[in-house]
Amino acid sequence: MARERLVIVGGDAAGMTAASQARRRKGPDDLAIVALERGHWTSYSACGIPYWISGVVADPQRLVARWPEEFQERQQIDARILEEVVGIDLGAGRVTVRRLAPAPGQDSEYVEGFDQLVLATGAVPVHPDWPGADLPGIFGIQTLDDGGDVIQALRLDPRRAVVVGGGYIGVEMAEAMGARGLAVTLLEAGEQPMATLDPDMGARVRAAMEGMGIEVRTGERVVGFAAGADGRVAAVETEQGTFPADIVVLGLGVEPNTSLAAEAGVGLGPTGGIRTNRMMRTLSHEQVWAAGDCVESYHRVSRQPVHVPLGTHANKQGRVVGINLTGGYATFPGVVGTAISKVFDLEIARTGLRERDCRAAGLRYATTTVDSTTTTGYMPGSEPVTVKLISEVRTGRLLGGQIVGRSGSAKRIDAIAIALWNAMTVEEMAGLDLAYAPPFAPVWDPVLIAARKAEESLRGRP
Amino acid sequence: MARERLVIVGGDAAGMTAASQARRRKGPDDLAIVALERGHWTSYSACGIPYWISGVVADPQRLVARWPEEFQERQQIDARILEEVVGIDLGAGRVTVRRLAPAPGQDSEYVEGFDQLVLATGAVPVHPDWPGADLPGIFGIQTLDDGGDVIQALRLDPRRAVVVGGGYIGVEMAEAMGARGLAVTLLEAGEQPMATLDPDMGARVRAAMEGMGIEVRTGERVVGFAAGADGRVAAVETEQGTFPADIVVLGLGVEPNTSLAAEAGVGLGPTGGIRTNRMMRTLSHEQVWAAGDCVESYHRVSRQPVHVPLGTHANKQGRVVGINLTGGYATFPGVVGTAISKVFDLEIARTGLRERDCRAAGLRYATTTVDSTTTTGYMPGSEPVTVKLISEVRTGRLLGGQIVGRSGSAKRIDAIAIALWNAMTVEEMAGLDLAYAPPFAPVWDPVLIAARKAEESLRGRP
Repeated sequence: MARERLVIVGGDAAGMTAASQARRRKGPDDLAIVALERGHWTSYSACGIPYWISGVVADPQRLVARWPEEFQERQQIDARILEEVVGIDLGAGRVTVRRLAPAPGQDSEYVEGFDQLVLATGAVPVHPDWPGADLPGIFGIQTLDDGGDVIQALRLDPRRAVVVGGGYIGVEMAEAMGARGLAVTLLEAGEQPMATLDPDMGARVRAAMEGMGIEVRTGERVVGFAAGADGRVAAVETEQGTFPADIVVLGLGVEPNTSLAAEAGVGLGPTGGIRTNRMMRTLSHEQVWAAGDCVESYHRVSRQPVHVPLGTHANKQGRVVGINLTGGYATFPGVVGTAISKVFDLEIARTGLRERDCRAAGLRYATTTVDSTTTTGYMPGSEPVTVKLISEVRTGRLLGGQIVGRSGSAKRIDAIAIALWNAMTVEEMAGLDLAYAPPFAPVWDPVLIAARKAEESLRGRP
Repeated sequence: MARERLVIVGGDAAGMTAASQARRRKGPDDLAIVALERGHWTSYSACGIPYWISGVVADPQRLVARWPEEFQERQQIDARILEEVVGIDLGAGRVTVRRLAPAPGQDSEYVEGFDQLVLATGAVPVHPDWPGADLPGIFGIQTLDDGGDVIQALRLDPRRAVVVGGGYIGVEMAEAMGARGLAVTLLEAGEQPMATLDPDMGARVRAAMEGMGIEVRTGERVVGFAAGADGRVAAVETEQGTFPADIVVLGLGVEPNTSLAAEAGVGLGPTGGIRTNRMMRTLSHEQVWAAGDCVESYHRVSRQPVHVPLGTHANKQGRVVGINLTGGYATFPGVVGTAISKVFDLEIARTGLRERDCRAAGLRYATTTVDSTTTTGYMPGSEPVTVKLISEVRTGRLLGGQIVGRSGSAKRIDAIAIALWNAMTVEEMAGLDLAYAPPFAPVWDPVLIAARKAEESLRGRP
């Protein structure tokens, strides 16, 4: 039997996990694996970039899980960096690859044949077409190279940072800039920062950030950027006003990077992400698999496709692909929309549906918000935590949860996420056997208090 | 309609929660509530006593959730301290109460009638009949008064503490004595400390404790205590040797305190705890309810009755009683055996069945133990954590989990407990949408890694 050829487009979490998993199941005599990455790095933690910029992580090499040479030496996976797939011919079974740094005498393009193909092209930052958006001093935070650029810019001794966008990257970069001693302004177009939370919980994030000395401005729509005498960015202009800035960080979210897939005829879904079945096989092509930030996932609560770009999903999906394309069987079971972040010691987490999601899904709901503490109140490390639960009226089924609090708060979202995953009612949740001891929780864990109150409020009496 | 009379025997977590919940649902014109507590305190956190002794909690009053006067003033609940129920006449509907500190002219006993009765008599420490066990300087840790006695004894400037028993109270008291600057020896009769874990995980606890300078001696069966010239305890004698001690703490576990109930004819179960149905009504008497450390609970995994004395269960059960005895409907759904503790920064947690429990239950199982970190490895606060999962062969159903690790480890047991509660397989668990960001977890949470490895090992291949 001829050796099968696997080509992977994209050498980050999803692609390289698929490669490794496939190799664990099929040796190099049976399966040749080529991974093509247009950037300088394979398998790095993009989520760690804010912590490198803030100085908490000293060395960007620590964010790299594995180098191309390691893939070759340990697993005979041919991981090639600075090589970009620029075209896919699904009929002929080949990709066209552009060498971004060809050696002298090398062709700038070549063709690689495949029997099976994995699309792991990731996401691209939303980058609006605002005037001045290309000025020096304005940065997106997507790649390690972006991070290096920000660190370079910090050497110019900037005083004022403006972060555009109040989502995960926005709040994490606000922390990073604050940690570097800059005066930080966060501009958010919406009603509150952290629009992945409901506005009432977003308001708590805002108040806490303001208490940390971060200026938070909401309802601020950016219209452009002004340059200073040195040609670098000097201000962010919004519909309302002008915000002086020596450095600007854009945190406007990302979109699935699917232009290559779309050109090749691979089917996309309503979110713009690649559609797959549960085995992470594309719906359009038997021999094509997809994983990571370029795909859309099934949301187990809304029952709708969603685009949730997160390294943890990318890893799981890549593993599923690696098992299936080597003849095994594994499925990606979907998501419930769990996410977590922090700004200094303020922790933020969410899972499931927000109020607006419930309305869109046609679910009538009740909300319950409780203020509690992370440990028994008399322990010295006790910190405030707020838990909000959303549950369906009548059935009492949990629909979503959000947590804002200080150290030790946010990982409690896992309890809510697993309850949600199992379609528990708030009454069932209130009976859960969660761990209690004074240094770890009040005698009623905050999650249990919230579930109990939700149950009581649905019943209309204690 | 005559005012109904409710008598509660025991004024701690279970009893006073039942009282409060009943009062929330029925006013004083409809229901008179008398709670009888033989000790000095109502509603205090016994679990907090080690932290008061260690000095972490400065004031024992902080451990008291609510005082008798507060119950009277806020809720018209007649909570009486230093009044001990010494007899129950279920046929006549009355209890005999002994005043432990009668006022001049007061009778030393009186009778109180009831329509409904709540038994919340708690647990009593196991106190073997070893010679010398009553010597000054030997303490149990059950009540606030016990805690006060230890603190008094610490004023005598003891140098060497011996803790007898390596369970929760034992390891917490080893920490407390260490925090007070004493040289600490922990004597455990079994193979490893923390017998609520499997021995392989107990060995990790032991190694960590030894690394903290706590001497841990296992297989040491105490036979008695020797007195010094001052008449106080001077040594603990075991079958193997003699351990000098200026202070001795007994942490030998507790038993349900059911002698009063048994004398009255209330039915006990195989664990020695009071048997109840799901509404926490005793099986033997329609008008008698029971809650807290004196009852046995249903274990949802083993399907057997178990005695799990924990404040969190006492609170939940008390609430269920308070709802039901006022005509509502609530059930206590049972336990999965979740527990958590710490020794300095070493965190310990467990849920579900241990290996020996699986064997006893007739369950064939596989185990998986993984070493991981609490956060992404490159974050400075990253700490080691070990997760062990036990799953049923063939079905892959989760049967239990144990965690030993440093700060940020043990509350992850909640994720395992909820998976267990919902009878998830390890394969299902591996797909769970748990929160990921570098400061909170590796990209595969340690719990997910363990589930994935368990799945792979059950399947016999990656």
